[in-house]
Amino acid sequence: MKTKANYKYLERIDTRFGDNDIFGHINNVIYYSLFDSVINRFLINKCQYNPFNSEVIAVSPETRCKFIQSLKYPEKIDAGLSTFKIGNSSVIYDISLFKTEQDTACAEGYFVHVFVNRDNMSEKVKIPKKIRAELEKISFKL
Amino acid sequence: MKTKANYKYLERIDTRFGDNDIFGHINNVIYYSLFDSVINRFLINKCQYNPFNSEVIAVSPETRCKFIQSLKYPEKIDAGLSTFKIGNSSVIYDISLFKTEQDTACAEGYFVHVFVNRDNMSEKVKIPKKIRAELEKISFKL
Amino acid sequence: MKTKANYKYLERIDTRFGDNDIFGHINNVIYYSLFDSVINRFLINKCQYNPFNSEVIAVSPETRCKFIQSLKYPEKIDAGLSTFKIGNSSVIYDISLFKTEQDTACAEGYFVHVFVNRDNMSEKVKIPKKIRAELEKISFKL
Amino acid sequence: MKTKANYKYLERIDTRFGDNDIFGHINNVIYYSLFDSVINRFLINKCQYNPFNSEVIAVSPETRCKFIQSLKYPEKIDAGLSTFKIGNSSVIYDISLFKTEQDTACAEGYFVHVFVNRDNMSEKVKIPKKIRAELEKISFKL
Repeated sequence: MKTKANYKYLERIDTRFGDNDIFGHINNVIYYSLFDSVINRFLINKCQYNPFNSEVIAVSPETRCKFIQSLKYPEKIDAGLSTFKIGNSSVIYDISLFKTEQDTACAEGYFVHVFVNRDNMSEKVKIPKKIRAELEKISFKL
Repeated sequence: MKTKANYKYLERIDTRFGDNDIFGHINNVIYYSLFDSVINRFLINKCQYNPFNSEVIAVSPETRCKFIQSLKYPEKIDAGLSTFKIGNSSVIYDISLFKTEQDTACAEGYFVHVFVNRDNMSEKVKIPKKIRAELEKISFKL
Repeated sequence: MKTKANYKYLERIDTRFGDNDIFGHINNVIYYSLFDSVINRFLINKCQYNPFNSEVIAVSPETRCKFIQSLKYPEKIDAGLSTFKIGNSSVIYDISLFKTEQDTACAEGYFVHVFVNRDNMSEKVKIPKKIRAELEKISFKL
Repeated sequence: MKTKANYKYLERIDTRFGDNDIFGHINNVIYYSLFDSVINRFLINKCQYNPFNSEVIAVSPETRCKFIQSLKYPEKIDAGLSTFKIGNSSVIYDISLFKTEQDTACAEGYFVHVFVNRDNMSEKVKIPKKIRAELEKISFKL
């Protein structure tokens, strides 16, 4: 099981009232929204990635999540992000969500990004240098 | 136009990748999600309101928003919350969203809560004392 | 109170599991998502509006909703759309949401669109001819 | 690759304006919302499952999605749902999303449900008889 110590990049994030479903906990769908938001914020803030008008964009061919323990609004969440496989044009992220006061993960995600040309969204391109350098810095800590 | 100085309660909140629509700015719908989240967090954290199992719950008969200037993920947002009309069983909130570095509002919302019995969701009840006391503390500053 | 007979344009729409909040009914925020979706679908399907790459786009300076009666997933919803004020560069929509088996509205919305240049998103432009013609066809029926 | 012929249960579903992200296609997160909604609608409409107040509820320990081809609002989507492993207290669904006019899948999902006691949300219980019977009827067609 993942703990906060496995991650070099940690970020505290918000929850929203509507995230809770009729069972009073955060709906399974929302976890992916948090993954997507944390990963793109890392790319934008740390890697000079610009999804608004850059030629190269990152799209996802596959995502996955294991739900271990409930989270619920209004609690804050600590997200840990790491990379564990960096290829020529794709990267696999490992991402976990934690209660702020707990060290073991409530959810563990697996999220793939492939870098493609914005115009056709299918032609794979090399991961831009600056982005690759930053992705390497947050590789998974055993 | 509202400024941060009009609000006694201010809270910094998150945006999410999916909040941006195809125009690259936060979709109009999301503003209401932020209103809903900030207001309920105030009620839960400051007023001992428990939407999960309290007998009395707050539901909304009306909401409104004016969109003045675009916001966009990944920026953080400062939300200002105040009350400007507190009745027997209902309250009207005034809520504004600000860029963190800017003093004038990007969006101004109007959000009504009416307190009702959880069981039937229609019978109005008096605003609980503790909640009323806190609502009065954040009344709008001219 | 609005009834289905007030609308020339009616469309049956879906609800989603996550639309229901902890109170077991559709969260107030979602109503705006339904408004936004029905209006844009009308513009795209009936008016040759292309939000993906047209020069002129429609953005919203103001929206409002009155919540009269709960709706809940998994029920389908009938949305009625009409226009009641068409200016040079803006239009006000009236939109109501109905249970499929009921003639009176569960929610009544008010949604403003202003047509602007895509590039700056602030310079107002005339409503394109084809769009105006279609907006006029669904003006509110008393 | 999955085709519509692999599914005994097919349902046409809606998309929403806000489903499209800044790249003009449906955001990866939304696919899970569609999975969640189609699966629960099947359980509610076909299996007498009542997530609002039944003692036994279905929660998800794991979900996954492969994204093959873009979908975008305002198009409608055909969702195909099947089961491929039904245990004592859990079931694995296979779910695919299709363009209405195309026979091969744009996205393939894997979604696990485990049936638990509503009160504690952790004690596993046997899949209720009526639900099991219906889950068996939609087992995957090779």
